[in-house]
Amino acid sequence: MNSRIFRFPGIFELSEAVRPVIGEHMHSFDTIHVDLGERAYDIFIGPGLLSRLGERCAETFSARKTLLVTDENVAGHHLAAAENSLRSAGFAVTVCVLPPGEESKSTARLASLWEAAVKAKLDRKSFFVALGGGVIGDLAGFAAASYLRGVPFVQVPTSLLAMVDSAVGGKTGINLPQGKNLVGAFHQPALVLADLQVLNTLPAREFSAGMAEVIKYGIIWDRKMFEAIEDHVDAIRALHPDLLKQLVRRSCEIKAEMVRKDEREHGMRALLNYGHTLGHAIENVSGYGEHLHGEAIAIGMVYASKLSERLCGLPAAATHRQIELFKAFDLPVSWQGMKWGPLFEAMTVDKKAENALPRFVLADSLGQANLPRDVEVACLKTVFEEESP
Amino acid sequence: MNSRIFRFPGIFELSEAVRPVIGEHMHSFDTIHVDLGERAYDIFIGPGLLSRLGERCAETFSARKTLLVTDENVAGHHLAAAENSLRSAGFAVTVCVLPPGEESKSTARLASLWEAAVKAKLDRKSFFVALGGGVIGDLAGFAAASYLRGVPFVQVPTSLLAMVDSAVGGKTGINLPQGKNLVGAFHQPALVLADLQVLNTLPAREFSAGMAEVIKYGIIWDRKMFEAIEDHVDAIRALHPDLLKQLVRRSCEIKAEMVRKDEREHGMRALLNYGHTLGHAIENVSGYGEHLHGEAIAIGMVYASKLSERLCGLPAAATHRQIELFKAFDLPVSWQGMKWGPLFEAMTVDKKAENALPRFVLADSLGQANLPRDVEVACLKTVFEEESP
Repeated sequence: MNSRIFRFPGIFELSEAVRPVIGEHMHSFDTIHVDLGERAYDIFIGPGLLSRLGERCAETFSARKTLLVTDENVAGHHLAAAENSLRSAGFAVTVCVLPPGEESKSTARLASLWEAAVKAKLDRKSFFVALGGGVIGDLAGFAAASYLRGVPFVQVPTSLLAMVDSAVGGKTGINLPQGKNLVGAFHQPALVLADLQVLNTLPAREFSAGMAEVIKYGIIWDRKMFEAIEDHVDAIRALHPDLLKQLVRRSCEIKAEMVRKDEREHGMRALLNYGHTLGHAIENVSGYGEHLHGEAIAIGMVYASKLSERLCGLPAAATHRQIELFKAFDLPVSWQGMKWGPLFEAMTVDKKAENALPRFVLADSLGQANLPRDVEVACLKTVFEEESP
Repeated sequence: MNSRIFRFPGIFELSEAVRPVIGEHMHSFDTIHVDLGERAYDIFIGPGLLSRLGERCAETFSARKTLLVTDENVAGHHLAAAENSLRSAGFAVTVCVLPPGEESKSTARLASLWEAAVKAKLDRKSFFVALGGGVIGDLAGFAAASYLRGVPFVQVPTSLLAMVDSAVGGKTGINLPQGKNLVGAFHQPALVLADLQVLNTLPAREFSAGMAEVIKYGIIWDRKMFEAIEDHVDAIRALHPDLLKQLVRRSCEIKAEMVRKDEREHGMRALLNYGHTLGHAIENVSGYGEHLHGEAIAIGMVYASKLSERLCGLPAAATHRQIELFKAFDLPVSWQGMKWGPLFEAMTVDKKAENALPRFVLADSLGQANLPRDVEVACLKTVFEEESP
């Protein structure tokens, strides 16, 4: 384990060798306030927060009824703790356990949540709790956004990806057979609880997929964080608690800042889509099952980086460093074997397309990305057809 | 035809005998600005506006693609005019014609609109047009609210009910098997065009159902309008153009003012629900097909008025005047033959219920309603079981 001191902008200095490990600081957590006026909310980050879910909800809501949505995988590890915490705080809890996986982000599952809410007689002041990864957060969030034209909801992300990305910022939605996230709402959570201890039960592959998004923040916004990750791969993979807290915190800060400045993605929020144009197309064409989201966008980031070399003067070394870092987390970096035709078609259906031309976030340098731009089909195809990295 | 001069607050005086009839002032229209900050929009009211739909959209939107949603009944009368106007203005139009009736406000129809939008490759700047009554407006509006997490839409109401109520204010949604409007979004239109000429093809029964909502504005907010309607029943039923324009305009003004002050119905907007607690329950129990919305709320208003007599000191004469006015427009006024049990159950599922106790808007006097309040079950039942009026 590397014991160099590193520093993220605005974050305390950390010498890993002298920091305590999880279990010794159970009640230490950080708070990020997402300042969105009447839709403002707090993100709590730290170990052991799941057991305090009921307490936090009691501070936030006057209602007594909640619909707790989770999936079968997460339920096995964390449902009892969440449900007990809510019941102990006096809430009447109705639990919906869905099958795991992207397939649950469907119109049919959405309708099943609406009907469960009606059957439980949830009213306008009741709230939903999304206990799970991005799929559960997106689905339960959109169900909350649309049930009775909008009830509050709590995000309890249980994957690294959800903690640093999907649980923050209010994007909710479902997939259609034709593409991902084609339907949804902007609906901010009332509260986000990121319990770092749940990462101990997260499969390594999903942890790595989450790291793809963390690395993305480095590429688009924070070169120092990118370099800190490069320097501490082993410690991060070993789930060093303070490193994790800093990575999650810094990622949430960056995302919260972008959301604050541009809640509905008319401008800078679109930077977050670096790697996502091809990434979404890969997920769509391969049917959502083959690649985790973070894996698909790792491939998409390599592609965007190669486009950036050609169109923005990004040094080839910067692409190389991204590839090496993705590989260090066992993330895929190549689109070899994938077919141009269906991927291109999928990119034009993607919601970021305007007038049917794919748009890309590209980078000038590590830590410095630009707002989305149209890229000519000929250029897209040439880069695609180059030898896979 | 009564030729007395009457005056609505804030509106010019009208002597019917000296006003021109429809056809002679084709291009005369009124505009109401709904001031909702970045969600502000204009309502245009007047004859002949349908043929200017494309022109208005070209002034409002930069996109070239639109999804035009209507139903089979409306399509027969007005689709060609709307579609031609849009195409003449240079828009690429995809048309969705749905079966008429409340059954179309379903999850399945909603999904069919989402898929039509994807197939037509509508992007975030594209817009939907809702050409029809409240069902089409609510459904297409929610499809627009949720497609790509929200695209703009235009309301072109073709029923009196839609012109004075559902097309204004941004409430969109669908029904669930368990109840009406249980799912939806607040999504303001970008533009509302109320072409008064289309009322000439509206069945008399639907015109009367719309008048139920117009009369409601009188009861909750504007006694003078209520009395003006009492004085001009025959002229209104004969579709006197300037009377219609004034009634639609004044109704939209009242609704716009309530929406401006309380877009998301945390306060005074709830006044608009006068008559709706029982009204929605009637629609729900009878399966949406038997009563038009305006008919159901006419019955609900009589019930709310009788509750108001008991709880707010409303004079019995005020209930009597409402009943007489509803009858003058051939609206039903009695719940005779309906069963208490299922109606009560439906009222507690209604979204306006908090903690499962039905809430009612009640009136102190004609023109003066109060914010919703819980009403004890015993009182509700007693009034329900009194002899039907």
